[in-house]
Amino acid sequence: MECCLASLLRAPSLSIVLPGKSSRRSSSLHLRQLVGFHPSRCQKMFVPGFGEASPEAKAAANLHHFFTFVAIKIVLSQLQSYNREAYEELMEFVSRNSLNDGDQFCRRLMRESPRHKGLALRIMEVRSAYSKRDFEWDNLQMLAHKMVDESNTRLMRDYVKETSHIEDN
Amino acid sequence: MECCLASLLRAPSLSIVLPGKSSRRSSSLHLRQLVGFHPSRCQKMFVPGFGEASPEAKAAANLHHFFTFVAIKIVLSQLQSYNREAYEELMEFVSRNSLNDGDQFCRRLMRESPRHKGLALRIMEVRSAYSKRDFEWDNLQMLAHKMVDESNTRLMRDYVKETSHIEDN
Repeated sequence: MECCLASLLRAPSLSIVLPGKSSRRSSSLHLRQLVGFHPSRCQKMFVPGFGEASPEAKAAANLHHFFTFVAIKIVLSQLQSYNREAYEELMEFVSRNSLNDGDQFCRRLMRESPRHKGLALRIMEVRSAYSKRDFEWDNLQMLAHKMVDESNTRLMRDYVKETSHIEDN
Repeated sequence: MECCLASLLRAPSLSIVLPGKSSRRSSSLHLRQLVGFHPSRCQKMFVPGFGEASPEAKAAANLHHFFTFVAIKIVLSQLQSYNREAYEELMEFVSRNSLNDGDQFCRRLMRESPRHKGLALRIMEVRSAYSKRDFEWDNLQMLAHKMVDESNTRLMRDYVKETSHIEDN
């Protein structure tokens, strides 16, 4: 990534007409080929099936719903200790509305009653603060890398164990 | 985060017996209180319901399955152009196995046949390379922040529009 950006910065007057229907990936591929990247270091694997969006956008949308879910948990935990009435109201609303789509949940909550609207605004504020201030992005990346490595090792180890066991028998 | 770490580094001989069943969040809360943090700058919101894990670990697990899904798409796209037989085989396997759990998918694929095992190893290799080299983590963070801001604005704008409309009538 660093070398891609560096190469682009070294060619500031670069002007390329990109093909009309190309995806983000293929556009950047053209750019890279034109500015003479070393393929083994900079070329990315082509990811089909995301149309005009990107895998990063898809993952961000999932995280967005997750942040709403976390914000609801935070607000519930805060209310539980000092506003039992609001806590019960939000719990009751959560029990009959899906949390899969965070925005849809907030949209419905805002229209339930003026009191619920206040709760929705608070959830929206908390999800913004949480994603920008509390959520540990570096930790997420580190954990995801570790998870891939550990899962790959475990899958291969289990397979080898299983096959050796069959051969023993 | 930086100031939390800085404060911890300034107290290298700090030794605290943490309560047995406390979560990661509450442990770090104790630490922060003991080393005298300024609450408005460093104190994080308490997120309940993740037990011994953390929201970051939960999000990393979701991303892990997502990376397997992306790796399958990449491998399918590569096979399509130069190995139709393997492509058809993998497509057939995908059609009758859920992609929700990436590791479970790989585990089954490895045990289907020796040829399928080769495909599974390739998917595992690709998901590792993709998550470490190709996936744009900075872009993910930027997109997620943007998504929260835009969603919050849209939800409030829609609500105001709707209420004004009712009052007009």
